[in-house]
Amino acid sequence: MDSLFTPSSIAVVGASSVSGKIGNTILSNLQSAGYSGQLYPVNPRGGDINGISAYKKISDIGTPVDLAVVAVPRDLVLGIFKELLELGVSSVVVITAGFKEVDHEGWLLEVQLAKLAEEHGVNLLGPNCLGVINSRGGVNASFATGNPLPGSMGFFSQSGALCVAVLDWALGEKVGFSKFISLGNKAVINEASMIEYLGNDPETKVILGYVENIEDGREFMAQAAKVSMKKPILMMKAGTTPAGARAASSHTGAMAGSDQACDAAFRQSGVIRVEKLDELFNLAKAFSVQELPLGPNLGIVTNAGGPGILAADACGESVMRMPTFSPGTIGELQRMLPGYASLYNPVDLLGDADAESYGRAVRIVGHDPAVNSLLVIIAPTVNLDFTEVAKAVVQGMGEVSKPVFCCLMGRKNSAEAREIFAEAGVPVYDFPKQAVRAMDCMHKYAVWKGRPPRTYFTPEHDVDAARAVVDNALRSGRSELVEFQARDIVTAYGLPTPESDLARSGDEAVAIAEQLGYPVVLKIASPEISHKSDVDGVRVGLNCAEEVRAAFWDITARTQRLRPDVFIAGCLVQQMASPQSREVIVGFRRDKQFGPLLMFGLGGVYVEILKDISFRLAPLSVEEAGEMVREIRSYMLLKGVKGGEPVDFEAITDVLIRMSCLADDFPEIYEAEFNPVLVNSDEALVADARMTVVDISADAGNRPDERE
Amino acid sequence: MDSLFTPSSIAVVGASSVSGKIGNTILSNLQSAGYSGQLYPVNPRGGDINGISAYKKISDIGTPVDLAVVAVPRDLVLGIFKELLELGVSSVVVITAGFKEVDHEGWLLEVQLAKLAEEHGVNLLGPNCLGVINSRGGVNASFATGNPLPGSMGFFSQSGALCVAVLDWALGEKVGFSKFISLGNKAVINEASMIEYLGNDPETKVILGYVENIEDGREFMAQAAKVSMKKPILMMKAGTTPAGARAASSHTGAMAGSDQACDAAFRQSGVIRVEKLDELFNLAKAFSVQELPLGPNLGIVTNAGGPGILAADACGESVMRMPTFSPGTIGELQRMLPGYASLYNPVDLLGDADAESYGRAVRIVGHDPAVNSLLVIIAPTVNLDFTEVAKAVVQGMGEVSKPVFCCLMGRKNSAEAREIFAEAGVPVYDFPKQAVRAMDCMHKYAVWKGRPPRTYFTPEHDVDAARAVVDNALRSGRSELVEFQARDIVTAYGLPTPESDLARSGDEAVAIAEQLGYPVVLKIASPEISHKSDVDGVRVGLNCAEEVRAAFWDITARTQRLRPDVFIAGCLVQQMASPQSREVIVGFRRDKQFGPLLMFGLGGVYVEILKDISFRLAPLSVEEAGEMVREIRSYMLLKGVKGGEPVDFEAITDVLIRMSCLADDFPEIYEAEFNPVLVNSDEALVADARMTVVDISADAGNRPDERE
Repeated sequence: MDSLFTPSSIAVVGASSVSGKIGNTILSNLQSAGYSGQLYPVNPRGGDINGISAYKKISDIGTPVDLAVVAVPRDLVLGIFKELLELGVSSVVVITAGFKEVDHEGWLLEVQLAKLAEEHGVNLLGPNCLGVINSRGGVNASFATGNPLPGSMGFFSQSGALCVAVLDWALGEKVGFSKFISLGNKAVINEASMIEYLGNDPETKVILGYVENIEDGREFMAQAAKVSMKKPILMMKAGTTPAGARAASSHTGAMAGSDQACDAAFRQSGVIRVEKLDELFNLAKAFSVQELPLGPNLGIVTNAGGPGILAADACGESVMRMPTFSPGTIGELQRMLPGYASLYNPVDLLGDADAESYGRAVRIVGHDPAVNSLLVIIAPTVNLDFTEVAKAVVQGMGEVSKPVFCCLMGRKNSAEAREIFAEAGVPVYDFPKQAVRAMDCMHKYAVWKGRPPRTYFTPEHDVDAARAVVDNALRSGRSELVEFQARDIVTAYGLPTPESDLARSGDEAVAIAEQLGYPVVLKIASPEISHKSDVDGVRVGLNCAEEVRAAFWDITARTQRLRPDVFIAGCLVQQMASPQSREVIVGFRRDKQFGPLLMFGLGGVYVEILKDISFRLAPLSVEEAGEMVREIRSYMLLKGVKGGEPVDFEAITDVLIRMSCLADDFPEIYEAEFNPVLVNSDEALVADARMTVVDISADAGNRPDERE
Repeated sequence: MDSLFTPSSIAVVGASSVSGKIGNTILSNLQSAGYSGQLYPVNPRGGDINGISAYKKISDIGTPVDLAVVAVPRDLVLGIFKELLELGVSSVVVITAGFKEVDHEGWLLEVQLAKLAEEHGVNLLGPNCLGVINSRGGVNASFATGNPLPGSMGFFSQSGALCVAVLDWALGEKVGFSKFISLGNKAVINEASMIEYLGNDPETKVILGYVENIEDGREFMAQAAKVSMKKPILMMKAGTTPAGARAASSHTGAMAGSDQACDAAFRQSGVIRVEKLDELFNLAKAFSVQELPLGPNLGIVTNAGGPGILAADACGESVMRMPTFSPGTIGELQRMLPGYASLYNPVDLLGDADAESYGRAVRIVGHDPAVNSLLVIIAPTVNLDFTEVAKAVVQGMGEVSKPVFCCLMGRKNSAEAREIFAEAGVPVYDFPKQAVRAMDCMHKYAVWKGRPPRTYFTPEHDVDAARAVVDNALRSGRSELVEFQARDIVTAYGLPTPESDLARSGDEAVAIAEQLGYPVVLKIASPEISHKSDVDGVRVGLNCAEEVRAAFWDITARTQRLRPDVFIAGCLVQQMASPQSREVIVGFRRDKQFGPLLMFGLGGVYVEILKDISFRLAPLSVEEAGEMVREIRSYMLLKGVKGGEPVDFEAITDVLIRMSCLADDFPEIYEAEFNPVLVNSDEALVADARMTVVDISADAGNRPDERE
C-alpha cells in the first residue's frame, strides 16, 4: 500500500488546465499540498497544465509510476487502466463515477477493472471516489477542497459527501488526520484492507470509518479483531433500519446484510459502533489524545451545580460510576473550600472558584485511589480566567497522571485555554454529556482490550451421521428438515433430546407412552409440516392410555382433513418436560456477509412479543456463549426468581456451542432452530428442531439469501 | 409581571463603580443594552457610578420604582428588601447568593423574603440568580456578559451556569431571545409562573426551560397544559438518575421528585422533554422558525447518497415516515434527472446537481400529496454554489407551502446560504439526524395539539364506606390495610372481587369452599401481614374438602410458628381464577410534587424482572387510562397471541379510573396496589389489594414521603 500513500511518482490521467474541473483540482491539490515527488499530468491535448508540461499518452511517460489518479469519462477508464498496466503502476485511484452504482454496464466495467487489478497485483481505490490523502508528504490525490491538517486520525468513508463534510468539520475544529481515504465503490480496496493498513500505520492512533455495507464480512472481522487490540476503531454503519437499508441498496447497489449480523460482527471484533456523525467526532477527539482509564470511576470537579448534575445524569445512563471519596480526600477538600461547597462527587467549587482552587481540587480528587479519571467542568463566571484555569488544571493533572477530560461551557475568551488543553492532551467538550459519553466509551474499550482470551472448543460429534440426513434431504429435493429428521442431527451433535419414538398407530402410541411413562406429549409427524401448530398438531399432558389413543386419532384425522395432500408418518410420542423446566430458543440464520448468525432467547412471548433476543456470529467462543445468555433482559428468569432454582447454564451454552459447530460444518444448512430447548437445573433437552437446507452446489440464484 | 420585564424605572442596589464587580456589571449591562427608563444606582458611598450619581439610601430615591435589582452581601438583603417595600416596588431581582442552597440560616432568610414578597404582592426573582433580560427595551438586568439578540425564544433556567452557556451559544449561532430568565432558588417566581408569563407574551414563540426540580407540580401542570396548546414548551429536567438526583439535592437543597412522576407530568401537560443541551437548541431552532407539519410523511431531496441513508435511518428510529411518491411525481422526476439517479424517496440528485435541479426537485416532491414536509440535504461538491441552491430551494418551497428543513453539510462558503435560509424560516442543521429528530418532535407536538379532548368521569362509589375503613385503621394506629380490610374499599369503589369469605376454622373454610365451588384459593388473613408470601401464606388450586382443611391448618400453623407475635384472623377462602385469566397490577404512589402517580403493568415477571410498567398522574382521563394499557411492551399479551382472546380492556381502564378516583378522594392513602387483578375477556377482578394510610392531620414529618 506504500505506493498509494507515499508514492514517489504520481500520474494524473485526465489532468486539466481548466479551473473547477476535477482533473485540475486533483493536480492543484497535489501541488498546493507540497507534493515533492514526480508529477505526470496526462491529457490528450498535451500542453502546459499548472506549470507542468502534460503527456499526451500514458505510454509517453516512459517509466513506471507508483500511483495513477484517473479522472476521465467512464467509457475511457478501462482502456486507460490497461495502458497504465502496460506502463507499470502499483496503485490506481479511479475518481470517475458511473460504475456499479448506476447500471448493469457500469457494473460489468467495474468487475473487469477489479479482475485486472487483482491479476496484476495493483491496489485499486474506487471507482466513484474522492481520492486519497496522506497529510504528511503532500499526497493530496483528491478533488476535496482544502488540505487536512496532519494528525493522528485515520479516516475512511464509503460516501464521498461524508468525506467532504468531515474534512470541513476537521478544518474548523483544527483536528488533523494521518490518512484520509474515500473508498467509493470498493471494487478492490475496502474497509477491511484500510483497517489492516491503518492498523499498521504508525502515524494513525485512532481509526474512523463510515460504511453503508461491509464487502467481506469474515475478512473484515479478522482484520478488525487484530487491529482493535492495538488501536480503537470507531465506525458508523448507515442503513440500519429497513427504511435506511432501502435507501442504501438503491444508492450503491450494495446488498445490505442484516443489521443484527453487522452489530454482532462489530462487537465480536472490538469495533466501536457509533450512531451519529457528531458522536463520531466527539469520540475520536477523546481517543486520539487521551489515555484509556483504568476503571469506570469518575471524579467530577465543577464550578456550577447544574452542569454537575447533567454529568451525574450521564453517568447514570452509562457504565461510568461516581465513587465516594475517601475521608482523606473529603478532609482536604473541606480545608480548601467554603463551608457551603459540595465536598462530595461532583465537587462543586462554586461560582467564585478561581484557577488555584481548580488546580488544588484536581490534585486532591485525582489522588483519591477510588478515582480512575477526572471530568473538569468550567462554567464561565464574572471573574474566571479560562486561560489561568486551563494552566492550573493541566499542572494539577500532571501530578496525578490519570486521564482528564474537560467540559468548557462557553466559546468566548476560551481560545487560549483550548490550546493549552489541546497541547496537554485534554479533550474539551461543550456539554457534560458529550464528555461522559466519550469517557464511557473509552472505558468500555479498555475493558474489551483487557478481556481474558476467548476459548474455543469443538465438541465431539458424528459428522457423518448428520451428513447422511442432510444429503438425503437434498437428494429428495426437500428443503425443510422437520422434527423427526432434524432430531437425528441433534443427536449426532451430542445433544440430549427428550425420550421419544414415532408411533404409526394409536396402539403403538400407547405402547410407547407406557414405556416412557406418563405424562407424555403427542406431536404430528409429517415431513411436509414444519409448523405443527398450523394444524393444531400437538397435545401435551396426556396422562393415560385413553388420552393417548384419542389424541393420536384426533391429531392425525385433523391433519388429514386440513392438509389432504401431505404424507403423515404418524405421531411422535415424547416424554413430558418437568414443570420446573423453562423453555429457551437457540437458532441460527446464515447472513450473506457474515455467515451464521446465532440467536438465543427465552421461549414463547419473550421472543415473539418482547423481541428479547441476543445475537452472535459463529464460531462461538465459550465466553461469547455465556454473554449471549446473560445479555437478554429476561436473564433473571433463568437465574430463578423468588427462590426458584437457577437453570443449568453450562448445558445451555453447550447447546449454543454445538449449534455453532453445526453451522460451521454444514454450509448447506441455511437456517436452524431448536425450539423449545427445555432447561432445568440439571440439563437442557432439545425438544423440537427444524432446519432449512439448500443445495449449495446448485446455481447460487436459488439460495434463499439471494431471494430477499 | 410587566414591572419585571418592561419596567419604566430600575433601582440597582449595590451598584458599584469598580469594573468586574457584579454591581457594576448589572448597571453597565442596562446601559449598554440601551435601557431608556429611569435608572437609580444605590450605594452607601454615593458618588458617581458609570456617569449617574448614586443614591446613598433607598429612601433617597423618593419615588416608587418598578424594578429593583439587589446585589449586596447576604446579610443585608432582608433589610434592603424591607426598605424597598417602604419605598414602593413592584418587582425585585435578588442576585445575591447564600440562601437555602448553603445553610439553614440562608434558608430561613429566604423564607422570610418569600413571605414578605407574597404579602406585598411583589414579584421576587431569585435569590441566587443571574438576573433577567428582555431583549427588547434594553432591560438587561443581569450580570451576564453580552447582550442577547432579540428573537422569539423565551428561556428560563434554574442554573446560572447554564444561562451563561446558553447566551454564549446563542450569540455564536446568531439566535435571539424574547426573554431570558435566571430562576435561581425560585423563592417566589418559578417555572410555573414563567410558563404562564411567556405563554401570554406575544414576543415569545417557543418556550425553553432548564430545571433541576419542579416547585409546585400541580400548578406547573396546570400552566403547562394551558400554554402548550398555544406554543411549544421544551424543557430539560436534570437529576433524572439516582446519581444525578443525589447531586441535585446536595446542590440546591431541592427535594427531587421521582423522575417517573416528572416524566408523566411533562407528557400529560404537553411539555416536550429534552435530554441534552445541544438537542434543546436544535429543537428550539426548528420550533421558532418553522410551521408544524400536517403529518409524519417526509420527502427527502439530496445530492449525496450517504447523508440520504443517514436521514432514512433516522426516520426508521422515529415516527417519521418516508412515503412512496405518486406515479406523477416519479414521472416528473424522471424527466428532469439523469437515468441513474434515484427517483424514489430519498431523491438523489447526484453529485452534479445544481441550484436549478434542487429548485425543481423541491417543487416536484413538495407537490406530491403524500408528502407533509421536506428535508433538503446539501453536500458540498466541486461546482455547487450554496447561495444559489439556497435561493432555488426557498423559491421552490414558496410554491408548495409545506415545512422545509435543510441539512447543509459544510460550514465553508455557506454564510450567505445560511442567511437566505434563516430569512425564509428554514432551520439549517449540520447532520441529517439532527434535522429528522427536530421534524419528528414537531410532528409529535402537532399530534398533541390536535388530539381529541380528554374525557373524565367520576365513577359511582360509596365514599363513606371507604372512609370508615380508613378512619378505623388510623384510629387503631395501623398504617397497612391488608387484603381483607382493603377489599372493603375496593368494593366501595364498585370494583368486582373474586367471591371469597373469611374462615376462622378448617370447617368454616370447607363450608365456604363448598358454597363457592372448587377449585379455591386459601390465603392467610392477618392485619399484620401484608406480604403473604413471606410466610408462604397462600395455597392455590384446592380441589376438595380434604385439601382445604389441610391447607387451612398448614397455613395458620406455619404463620403462628414464623410470626408468633401476630394476630391471625383466619384464612380467606377465594374463588379460583379461570385458566384464561391474565394477571395485571394496578397501583399508585403519592409523589411529593405531583400527587398520586398511577402505575400499570402485567403481573409477575413483567413488572418484577422486565420493569415493563407505565405511569400517569391522577386524575386520569379515559384516554390516558387507555394509553397506559397500550404503552407497556407486553401489551400484545393482553390482546391475545396465537388466537387467544383479547382481555376486557374496558374493565381494565375502569379499574385504573376507579383507582385514580380513590387516590384523589383519600389523601390519607399514601400508596395502594391491586395485585393481582385477574382479567379475562369478560371482566377484571381485583383478587388482592393492599394500601398504606397515613394520618395527614399529624405532623408532616411523619409522612412516608418525607422520610425518603
